[in-house]
Amino acid sequence: MTQTKPVKIGLLGLGTVGGGTISVLNRNATEIERRAGRAIQVVAASARDIHKPRDFSTDGIELMTRPEDVVDHPEVEVVVELIGGCDVAGEMVRRAIKAGKHVVTANKALIAHHGNELFAKASERGVMIAFEAAVAGGIPIIKTVREALAGNRVEWLAGIINGTSNFILTEMRENATPFAEVLAEAQRLGYAEADPTFDVDGTDAAHKLAILAAIAFGTPLNFAAVTKEGIDTLEAIDVENARQLGYRIKHLGIARWREQGLELRVHPTLVPASHILASVDGVMNAVLAKGDAVGPLLLSGAGAGAEPTASSVVADIVDVVRALTSDPENRVPHLAFQADSLNDVPVLPMQDTHCAFYLRLMARDRAGVLADVTDILRAISIEAIRQTETSGADEFVPVIILTQRIDERLIDEAIARIEALESVSGRVVKLRVECFDS
Amino acid sequence: MTQTKPVKIGLLGLGTVGGGTISVLNRNATEIERRAGRAIQVVAASARDIHKPRDFSTDGIELMTRPEDVVDHPEVEVVVELIGGCDVAGEMVRRAIKAGKHVVTANKALIAHHGNELFAKASERGVMIAFEAAVAGGIPIIKTVREALAGNRVEWLAGIINGTSNFILTEMRENATPFAEVLAEAQRLGYAEADPTFDVDGTDAAHKLAILAAIAFGTPLNFAAVTKEGIDTLEAIDVENARQLGYRIKHLGIARWREQGLELRVHPTLVPASHILASVDGVMNAVLAKGDAVGPLLLSGAGAGAEPTASSVVADIVDVVRALTSDPENRVPHLAFQADSLNDVPVLPMQDTHCAFYLRLMARDRAGVLADVTDILRAISIEAIRQTETSGADEFVPVIILTQRIDERLIDEAIARIEALESVSGRVVKLRVECFDS
Repeated sequence: MTQTKPVKIGLLGLGTVGGGTISVLNRNATEIERRAGRAIQVVAASARDIHKPRDFSTDGIELMTRPEDVVDHPEVEVVVELIGGCDVAGEMVRRAIKAGKHVVTANKALIAHHGNELFAKASERGVMIAFEAAVAGGIPIIKTVREALAGNRVEWLAGIINGTSNFILTEMRENATPFAEVLAEAQRLGYAEADPTFDVDGTDAAHKLAILAAIAFGTPLNFAAVTKEGIDTLEAIDVENARQLGYRIKHLGIARWREQGLELRVHPTLVPASHILASVDGVMNAVLAKGDAVGPLLLSGAGAGAEPTASSVVADIVDVVRALTSDPENRVPHLAFQADSLNDVPVLPMQDTHCAFYLRLMARDRAGVLADVTDILRAISIEAIRQTETSGADEFVPVIILTQRIDERLIDEAIARIEALESVSGRVVKLRVECFDS
Repeated sequence: MTQTKPVKIGLLGLGTVGGGTISVLNRNATEIERRAGRAIQVVAASARDIHKPRDFSTDGIELMTRPEDVVDHPEVEVVVELIGGCDVAGEMVRRAIKAGKHVVTANKALIAHHGNELFAKASERGVMIAFEAAVAGGIPIIKTVREALAGNRVEWLAGIINGTSNFILTEMRENATPFAEVLAEAQRLGYAEADPTFDVDGTDAAHKLAILAAIAFGTPLNFAAVTKEGIDTLEAIDVENARQLGYRIKHLGIARWREQGLELRVHPTLVPASHILASVDGVMNAVLAKGDAVGPLLLSGAGAGAEPTASSVVADIVDVVRALTSDPENRVPHLAFQADSLNDVPVLPMQDTHCAFYLRLMARDRAGVLADVTDILRAISIEAIRQTETSGADEFVPVIILTQRIDERLIDEAIARIEALESVSGRVVKLRVECFDS
């Protein structure tokens, strides 16, 4: 039964996602009310410059320059935080909680860094913090892991959770272009920000992985424990070698439950070209989660952009609206598991993680050199070894090695010994390989 | 905060999914309780033969031969119906509703045929009917469309929603084997039932599509309006031709919102080989939904099997448990939209649907014959025309035509005229082609 009283929203930030949220709420107002049973009305919004011309209508919305005025607005029941960053955004979320107002946010940095504190405060005050839009834009991966996998023990998950990196990798592969060149192009096209550091060095993906891992495994958020490598050091030659070997390089966030502890890592990864994750190209995101009951489950869609992210923000608003009258104890817990039952599972150092490896090294084109290398790798099963050129003389040529699964510690020891060989020049390039077959 | 009182479940049916549900609830009892905040306990279960040896433990469960005794069991708060079919299952669901007990079901036929009546009765009585497991097994597509897309106008959705058909099509393509042979193999492997009629003639997919369309578009369930074609009449030659043209044949359920009405259809479909749906092989299921805000969103995973289906059953139980204390008016509506705001949108006859087509015909290998055919197709843009063999004489050879998007009525008229040509022998084979590019 449709109720007559609309839910009143206060919106902080009128940037890309803020604008998308207002557009979607306006355009689909009828559909949303038919679903939620109540109208959803943005009554107040804050922006640094409230007079700036915008390509969406702010009719009927009280515009304010101070976000705290929106939070404090007496009519506002739900605060939608779309400012980003940790400082002002964090202050506003704390202020909303204190005032007993529910929060919807798209802020992955805030949740990854301060989620534990904010969720504790929110639970104490009996309000909800919803954050679907913080991970993978329009893909409902938070809802899926928190609710749809409620019967499962999550064994691992792996995600393409940074659209900028995925766009750059796709271009590097398809056009054999070096990283720096594609990045410049991505900035021109608006697929990469003016300062792309957090996207290309893995920080953004690490924020999202920290959130996914917590809700998958029932642990507090532990961003500091995520090992991160970006695509900014990736060379075009390795993208091409991977292609020739039947793989594609994807920037993945991987969280895996192991007896000894959790693997939490973000890095470029070789994935078999036939794997469904390999077919997720351009700015699309995807997350593959393996539950012990459901098996592998893939979600793929737009990981960023005004309206895809707004889609998640609006879904969160509707969820919050539905739960307004529910007993707080029966709400979906912030981190999927009841706050008093979170386990602080240790995170394994990168040295103890386990996967297959791609190695590239420069070795003398001389009888016996490959034997020296494989001798060092004796204890490590080799999947393939390939010398891609011959010099015809005693010169350095590239050698590619694919190993089977092994502890990272052992491959690092082997690499140190290989690099010490007189017949090998320079550093060994190491990339990780995942097949997701178990 | 974890509560002390467990929720008591009554389970109807100890077959594949019933066994899977008990196994998952037992194995992951701790994880589930840590999430739900309450233990979930099966107190009673019914089966025709309660003494049959089973490969899962029924310790602590009162076994009964009469399902009504489980429904009536005074301790049972939630009835999980896993009997299947419409007769006894329908009777039991009605009985549970009458008794004010919530229902979780995996029964697509029951929901597709009787959902409108059952949901009305349940709402009147203030109880929930949860049915995630009814569509696409372990894939949370009901939750996604009902909740995650709450801010969207759903434009269309397309799904590989029958695992048996997808397995058979994959085998037909990979091994160039005819339908009947693969079906027999699938039956030996347990991927097809002894009576596979509903799987291979499209009925099962039509049940699921009817459910998906209702929750996507906010209409009552309308199974009778779904046009269905199965894979049982598909010829190996067309699977091979599709492959050579860069397509794969998938059995899809397609629901599309158009100004004039809804398209609701289930049929074998050519999909570009590079499309992500084409890479969903074997018994896997996938649903691609296009929302106006989120864009295309894909979910892929196990569409059947004991534990994947149990994963959805348990998620539904947890959702129901969470909503036990909520105001019924604020629950997620059964069909996504508030019951009093469902629109009875007309369903278009198949003649008015719109897509591209693949045609195969036998034409005389003689000058001017192709001109006769293309003359008939003059008003229809042709994407490709291909004569795959030459006879070297005036004999019939296969001709393949790919058209652009057009009303089905027009292609049928053209086919009738082509079949009437003296230079064309027999029937024209017609298959639909979808690229999902808008």
